[in-house]
Amino acid sequence: MKVTVIGLGPGGGADLTGRAREALAACDLIVGYTAYIELVKKDFPEKEVLSTGMRREVDRCRAAVEAALTGRDVAVVCSGDSGVYGMAGLVYEVAREYDPIDIEVVPGITAACGGAALLGAPLTHDFAVISLSDLLTPWDLIERRLSCAAQADFVICLYNPSSHSRPDYLRRACGILLREKSPDTVCGYVRNIGREGEEAHTLTLGELRDTQVDMFTTVFIGSSKTGLLGGKMVTPRGYLQRNG
Amino acid sequence: MKVTVIGLGPGGGADLTGRAREALAACDLIVGYTAYIELVKKDFPEKEVLSTGMRREVDRCRAAVEAALTGRDVAVVCSGDSGVYGMAGLVYEVAREYDPIDIEVVPGITAACGGAALLGAPLTHDFAVISLSDLLTPWDLIERRLSCAAQADFVICLYNPSSHSRPDYLRRACGILLREKSPDTVCGYVRNIGREGEEAHTLTLGELRDTQVDMFTTVFIGSSKTGLLGGKMVTPRGYLQRNG
Ligand SMILES: C[S@@+](CC[C@H](N)C(=O)[O-])C[C@H]1O[C@@H](n2cnc3c(N)ncnc32)[C@H](O)[C@@H]1O
Ligand SMILES: C[S@@+](CC[C@H](N)C(=O)[O-])C[C@H]1O[C@@H](n2cnc3c(N)ncnc32)[C@H](O)[C@@H]1O
Repeated sequence: MKVTVIGLGPGGGADLTGRAREALAACDLIVGYTAYIELVKKDFPEKEVLSTGMRREVDRCRAAVEAALTGRDVAVVCSGDSGVYGMAGLVYEVAREYDPIDIEVVPGITAACGGAALLGAPLTHDFAVISLSDLLTPWDLIERRLSCAAQADFVICLYNPSSHSRPDYLRRACGILLREKSPDTVCGYVRNIGREGEEAHTLTLGELRDTQVDMFTTVFIGSSKTGLLGGKMVTPRGYLQRNG
Repeated sequence: MKVTVIGLGPGGGADLTGRAREALAACDLIVGYTAYIELVKKDFPEKEVLSTGMRREVDRCRAAVEAALTGRDVAVVCSGDSGVYGMAGLVYEVAREYDPIDIEVVPGITAACGGAALLGAPLTHDFAVISLSDLLTPWDLIERRLSCAAQADFVICLYNPSSHSRPDYLRRACGILLREKSPDTVCGYVRNIGREGEEAHTLTLGELRDTQVDMFTTVFIGSSKTGLLGGKMVTPRGYLQRNG
């Protein structure tokens, strides 16, 4: 009689929290995008699953809510955190159209934190998280957010940096950032965090503009304070700088 | 011979990932602020610990690096994520002053994700994370970031919203945001996430300005799209809005 929206972390497996693992063990049915169902199948092979293709987000939430209304405990799984560009919001929105059910959200390690750990410590100071996907957001709002984030000297973390239909979006985003930021700004990107083929790279903003990444990548653009320490991308919090 | 910087999640215990739990089980010594050592002692009662008071961050990192140089495997623990206003960056900075050692960062659920899960789904769209602590950051930079984040219509997540020495900082921050944002903007705050005394509240930005919170609180300020759904703070991603 409830829906639990569970963040699996970037790779599932060892990225799962104890709370997420318990919620998965307790549920009757796991609903999710096929690729994310794969992340939990190894650990919960006996569970009933309902997997749907990409871009079937609304259908997935309806199926989960409808199954809960028949008296089942349903887990909706997302990669990373359940909230950050995840399904938690949509489950709340869809559930409004039905009789009331219990909804619980179980957080997970989001790609920003998982990726930052691989690059070093880029997110030690204020940061902004922006999706470059314009499927649901007008591009001019994305541009405005990029521009304001650069003016504020936030570290910037980009989700959905690329897709087949918009291979040049990262390039466009870097162009906007370069109006405010130096081409030498320390940047990084991480691919397949916690999954097979995991890779992390550091480079400058000038180089990032000419780099092709895919949709399994999260991109980090440093603030003016971010530096490279022994190959790691680090934004100082300021302790040493204060003490001289 | 290595330092592992581990994020414990907001409350430790069930918030720990499998990876964090393995790293804690494998280490010889756990170093951290007293309150965070308490979060792991229950689960790892037999481990040697070195705990230091608040504001001893640099000493803590030095102690960890020096212990690693004597051949030990040292875990440095932080609440939430190890990067976000955490110790990962400082460990990299301090380690530069010594012979090379291995450093690994293990991410944790940051307060933004843990708190969002309790409030509903406020972080489903682009957001900015800002600390109101001016111990290490000039207040005018904090003001600029608040102002730019409001102009960009980010959801805003505030860490370190208050302390004894700056009880009025949240009020000042809300004042800046109110120059750009409606007093009816949906907001929320969460206290003691994952710990005893956990509480979550929603309110308007106008009300938030007149609310006193403490340092164990994370504050959420909605974007212009954030709403209340059955008492939950939800920022729509846009799926239903697109489909009509
Ligand atoms: C629809 S969003 C989902 C985000 C997810 N809920 C989270 O909190 O990480 C998809 C984007 O997240 C990022 N992402 C998610 N998992 C990732 C991983 N394992 N490695 C790298 N990036 C990842 C990529 O930028 C990807 O385009
Ligand atoms: C120095 S920062 C550490 C942040 C931590 N590394 C993280 O990722 O959550 C301390 C601030 O984080 C937030 N915070 C950390 N743990 C929290 C908890 N359990 N409940 C509410 N807020 C928390 C509060 O805003 C607090 O003032």
